[in-house]
Amino acid sequence: MLTKKWSLSSDRCFAPEPEQRQLARQFFYSISSLPLVCPHGHVDPALLANPAACFGSPTELLIIPDHYIFRMLYSRGIPLSALGIPSRDGSPVETDHRKIWQLFADNFYLFQGTPSGLWLKDELNNVFGVDEPLNSRNAGYIYDYLQKLLLLPEFSPRALFKKFNIEVLCTTDAASDPLEYHQSLHQEGLTHIKPTFRPDAVVNLNTPSWRENLTKLESTVGREITTYTAFVETLEERRGFFKKMGATATDHSAATPYTNRLTDEEAEAIFARALANKLNPGDAERFTGHMFVEMARMSVEDGLVMQMHCGIMRNHNQAVFEQFGSDKGADIPLKIEWTENLHPLLTAYGNHKDFHLILFGLDESTYSRELAPLAGHYPAVLLGPPWWFHDSINGMERYFNQVMETAGLYNTAGFNDDTRAFVSIPARHTVWRRVACNWLAGLVIRGLIEEEEGYGMAHALAYDLAKVAYKLN
Amino acid sequence: MLTKKWSLSSDRCFAPEPEQRQLARQFFYSISSLPLVCPHGHVDPALLANPAACFGSPTELLIIPDHYIFRMLYSRGIPLSALGIPSRDGSPVETDHRKIWQLFADNFYLFQGTPSGLWLKDELNNVFGVDEPLNSRNAGYIYDYLQKLLLLPEFSPRALFKKFNIEVLCTTDAASDPLEYHQSLHQEGLTHIKPTFRPDAVVNLNTPSWRENLTKLESTVGREITTYTAFVETLEERRGFFKKMGATATDHSAATPYTNRLTDEEAEAIFARALANKLNPGDAERFTGHMFVEMARMSVEDGLVMQMHCGIMRNHNQAVFEQFGSDKGADIPLKIEWTENLHPLLTAYGNHKDFHLILFGLDESTYSRELAPLAGHYPAVLLGPPWWFHDSINGMERYFNQVMETAGLYNTAGFNDDTRAFVSIPARHTVWRRVACNWLAGLVIRGLIEEEEGYGMAHALAYDLAKVAYKLN
Amino acid sequence: MLTKKWSLSSDRCFAPEPEQRQLARQFFYSISSLPLVCPHGHVDPALLANPAACFGSPTELLIIPDHYIFRMLYSRGIPLSALGIPSRDGSPVETDHRKIWQLFADNFYLFQGTPSGLWLKDELNNVFGVDEPLNSRNAGYIYDYLQKLLLLPEFSPRALFKKFNIEVLCTTDAASDPLEYHQSLHQEGLTHIKPTFRPDAVVNLNTPSWRENLTKLESTVGREITTYTAFVETLEERRGFFKKMGATATDHSAATPYTNRLTDEEAEAIFARALANKLNPGDAERFTGHMFVEMARMSVEDGLVMQMHCGIMRNHNQAVFEQFGSDKGADIPLKIEWTENLHPLLTAYGNHKDFHLILFGLDESTYSRELAPLAGHYPAVLLGPPWWFHDSINGMERYFNQVMETAGLYNTAGFNDDTRAFVSIPARHTVWRRVACNWLAGLVIRGLIEEEEGYGMAHALAYDLAKVAYKLN
Repeated sequence: MLTKKWSLSSDRCFAPEPEQRQLARQFFYSISSLPLVCPHGHVDPALLANPAACFGSPTELLIIPDHYIFRMLYSRGIPLSALGIPSRDGSPVETDHRKIWQLFADNFYLFQGTPSGLWLKDELNNVFGVDEPLNSRNAGYIYDYLQKLLLLPEFSPRALFKKFNIEVLCTTDAASDPLEYHQSLHQEGLTHIKPTFRPDAVVNLNTPSWRENLTKLESTVGREITTYTAFVETLEERRGFFKKMGATATDHSAATPYTNRLTDEEAEAIFARALANKLNPGDAERFTGHMFVEMARMSVEDGLVMQMHCGIMRNHNQAVFEQFGSDKGADIPLKIEWTENLHPLLTAYGNHKDFHLILFGLDESTYSRELAPLAGHYPAVLLGPPWWFHDSINGMERYFNQVMETAGLYNTAGFNDDTRAFVSIPARHTVWRRVACNWLAGLVIRGLIEEEEGYGMAHALAYDLAKVAYKLN
Repeated sequence: MLTKKWSLSSDRCFAPEPEQRQLARQFFYSISSLPLVCPHGHVDPALLANPAACFGSPTELLIIPDHYIFRMLYSRGIPLSALGIPSRDGSPVETDHRKIWQLFADNFYLFQGTPSGLWLKDELNNVFGVDEPLNSRNAGYIYDYLQKLLLLPEFSPRALFKKFNIEVLCTTDAASDPLEYHQSLHQEGLTHIKPTFRPDAVVNLNTPSWRENLTKLESTVGREITTYTAFVETLEERRGFFKKMGATATDHSAATPYTNRLTDEEAEAIFARALANKLNPGDAERFTGHMFVEMARMSVEDGLVMQMHCGIMRNHNQAVFEQFGSDKGADIPLKIEWTENLHPLLTAYGNHKDFHLILFGLDESTYSRELAPLAGHYPAVLLGPPWWFHDSINGMERYFNQVMETAGLYNTAGFNDDTRAFVSIPARHTVWRRVACNWLAGLVIRGLIEEEEGYGMAHALAYDLAKVAYKLN
Repeated sequence: MLTKKWSLSSDRCFAPEPEQRQLARQFFYSISSLPLVCPHGHVDPALLANPAACFGSPTELLIIPDHYIFRMLYSRGIPLSALGIPSRDGSPVETDHRKIWQLFADNFYLFQGTPSGLWLKDELNNVFGVDEPLNSRNAGYIYDYLQKLLLLPEFSPRALFKKFNIEVLCTTDAASDPLEYHQSLHQEGLTHIKPTFRPDAVVNLNTPSWRENLTKLESTVGREITTYTAFVETLEERRGFFKKMGATATDHSAATPYTNRLTDEEAEAIFARALANKLNPGDAERFTGHMFVEMARMSVEDGLVMQMHCGIMRNHNQAVFEQFGSDKGADIPLKIEWTENLHPLLTAYGNHKDFHLILFGLDESTYSRELAPLAGHYPAVLLGPPWWFHDSINGMERYFNQVMETAGLYNTAGFNDDTRAFVSIPARHTVWRRVACNWLAGLVIRGLIEEEEGYGMAHALAYDLAKVAYKLN
């Protein structure tokens, strides 16, 4: 399309030393055509359930839904309204997508050296064939070019799903979700798109819209939920339905990984106070901590793998939350503690052969101090890959260097892209695979593993570990 | 002067791999003659206000005023009194500067591999032309050589200021400071030496000499300060005066970045208890937390950039404090928390287009967990460079690797030398520029940025970011 | 013995860049024949006291006593009983050592990229001459080969002690230990095997078997201990006896480094409650914190170097503890705080010329934040090498990079292997020496130290620092 050629280095993410780089290349070559295993993410199943679905405009594809992108622009003073982020208070937002794209292009330099910058380049260059770096001058031209492509059938979500060589993709779905899109996919035989059971919206009693969320759940199961006992039974029933729709895992998020079993009486009493909108201070935290243990119990019973994502303060920016709602790039990590907090849960189920718990955190100081030692001891515990802000080249290197010596490779859960930005999936897996191969090449060059071992470990990191951890075989 | 040549490697601080090193050299060459921007530091303005000022003896220049130096000697058992550190209890200290210098030279090996060691070599070699490594044997010879130079006009503070190519230098000054030296500099037209408003001594009610500090402030403004309201008005007035004298920023330090607005009644009550010397436990912390918010309000109003330096326990060593006072190398960092602590302040002003907050901490575990995400979201927040102990090669590399992917380069504030050791200023900027260029070279070699981008980013890191962040344009 | 040659890289642990690697080799060559100084570890003195002692089967040598090894197997679902770990509840465990070895060999890949994997290879290859990688197929063959060797006199503990070139080895011994093996070694003139006084079992009042431990101590000294005063006197007496048996150091471990002096009355009251089995909440923690200060006082008086190992939650896995007891790979680190916790102890003794305190922690976030600044200021404080999980290549690199710039080399205590796995001692020292030399080579190549300085620093890291820190000269 354009005259000057722009492309990504075929050695990107590799260390500079030639011998290590050569070996990293070899490892990467050996795994580069493996299918993508995507056991955890936030792709909208509606995109895939409808064969005629389309991504819309370039701005709808790359900017409006992706808080990784617009939070960086916001941090430099660009209003979210100017970026077309829908407001929930009815205040006006920019609707001219071409104009938003121009603003994005004008500020594209803000992504220099960031993972988003690398993914965007990979998407533009490798998925869409843009061969000139995006800038103020060519913004309109590239917008029009992308818009034309996005209307073609070969750039539909389903077509890209195939092109991306995705073997399995798990979405993340509320406990109340009727899974209509997954049902429809199932009926078509597309069973490699699977739901994941995420009950936070009804489990975390201090969620702003908890009562509405519970009402949705009641509506989904067609009955009122007036007691803790009924609540637990409903969750068990929903897990069963998710499992029938192909789910192999659940997911749970909270500010801290505090766990502690309450007596049934205590749990009933807190739940009653929640229904009466009369929670005492600490009630919500204690209930969440209790439900972690309950969810572990259910996992032992139904075999769903349990994921915990902990250590984030949601909606830190009150003004942004009020005007635009959740997931607007305003979630900020918190320091957390796993060793004491997980003790009750692990005392109950940590040695159980049918329990599988995958841990994710944003407090990297816990990698070597708590997470690796826990995974390196408890049969039930695996460590998830670097999460969110740490899904980056340096984040992965810190993870490999701080986790693997103590946990061992086989107590980790491979990679997941955790994204709602569908077209960034291959770019994200590629970064993981490249950084993993570079790490392995370093181990060989430093005499710590044999080259032959490196090939097997690369295969595990790119493919096997995720499949095994999430029971996707 | 001496026979054997001693010099610093022209490739110092660069990674060993030849291709990366070559690129780092190129980047460094492109920025090495840029003037120094020094927006935060502790140089004594009296040194510059008097054209005839002189640095004194080599010991007065390099040892006695620099706690980075003498704390290392103290840690290996050398008494501070033997190093000529003035006592405040009248106990005798060594006054023979040549003898102190000999002791320093005898123990110069203690600085192997430390930033102080690197700066000292740079100062001795590049500023003073010492071309033999300092040791026990040549200590006296080098002392005499330096002493001779220090009496020459070309080694006066003003002459070195020019030679160092310092474009602007900001000092740090108490709220009560009449800024007489800055006034005199201003009258001479030397407006590139600017004060910074630092009111800790009167804001932190548990400062040992709080009452005396307040009295000084009263004396400066020529009236009593008997209420919180009057206190706040006085601070506003002083900020106005600092601004008139060229200040563009304020600076605030506390053990934690706790922030929380009190009601006026609460603030008045605490201030009254402070005046009555009857503080309740927690009063001082709550007042400091409140004043952070107040200072942010004033920054919005008068446009002064706000700096926060948090996470240090001052005067950890009680015996040293009693005998020698503050700033004696006995301040030890504390773990801190930003995400929850800054929430009230950022809720109030974090989205305000006229608010600029630069954060500094010593708890590196907060780089990737809290600081980079905060800077990568809030329009008001920028991250200062690695502070104090982390103003070092490894400290900078950790900063680049842990901050930049999430915060992005343009949410950082460039470099400042933060030093009271005037002759170390070029050495410190050089280390930053070298480590920055080496980091950028790594990004290019790993395919993450284009080489052309690297030149622009190097310029930003060496010069532009600091000027913009501190409004020094 | 076997056909295919298997060996360790002579460049293992070195960075890939050729110039740095060459220099690392030179440094390593210059120190590789220095004797091993082992100032802290857990070797059983009985092994060395009896000239006829033997290591038993390969499984008894390498698996059953080493929780580093079996915890990794356990984490992947292999029951401890299947590994021959003795149960304390009488439940049956595997007794066929050849079968256990086979299971170990089947799962040897789990150690890929771990320090245990590297040590095991070094032991098998360099100590025993196994020149084929252990796997399922050759497990029996190698078992028989090793078993044969282990019965030979040249593979007795004493013979290996000499072969390993160990200059001095300190064991770790309970306060109640009569040191019969050390007495016997002393009588033979083998004074380079020394005890270390570790009173945790009687000092930490919440130790499960505290009462029995006190009874043992009573029995050793031949009198009842019914008051705190008597308890302290007994500990002083035991320290004296340990010192007579060659001890130069004490060792103390607790979950946190909390220190605080109690009044004698408070200490007496808590001790009385402990004897009456009526401890109040917090009593044990306060008593431990007090005893840290007491132990520092005694160190000043008797000159024994004081070690603190803090930040571990012992026996995290309750089921494993109940069935198998302590030290079963189920200890998980905790985040800790040194700056405030050590303040009382350092205020009392931190400036005392006869006090020497070596600190060890598992919370690496404290390296640059607290530990290095403390060691870089207080004359009494030295930092121990990376401990336990961090006794690894990456753990050491983090230590060098995060500690040395602030603490300086000479405020660190060299290396100790801290192991009960006697045959792993040379492998562990070799890793330290290699990583240290590689770090120094990097400093030279980056222009931070002179090459000549590197040789001296390598010698210090490999040998001198440990001898000086532990007064082993």
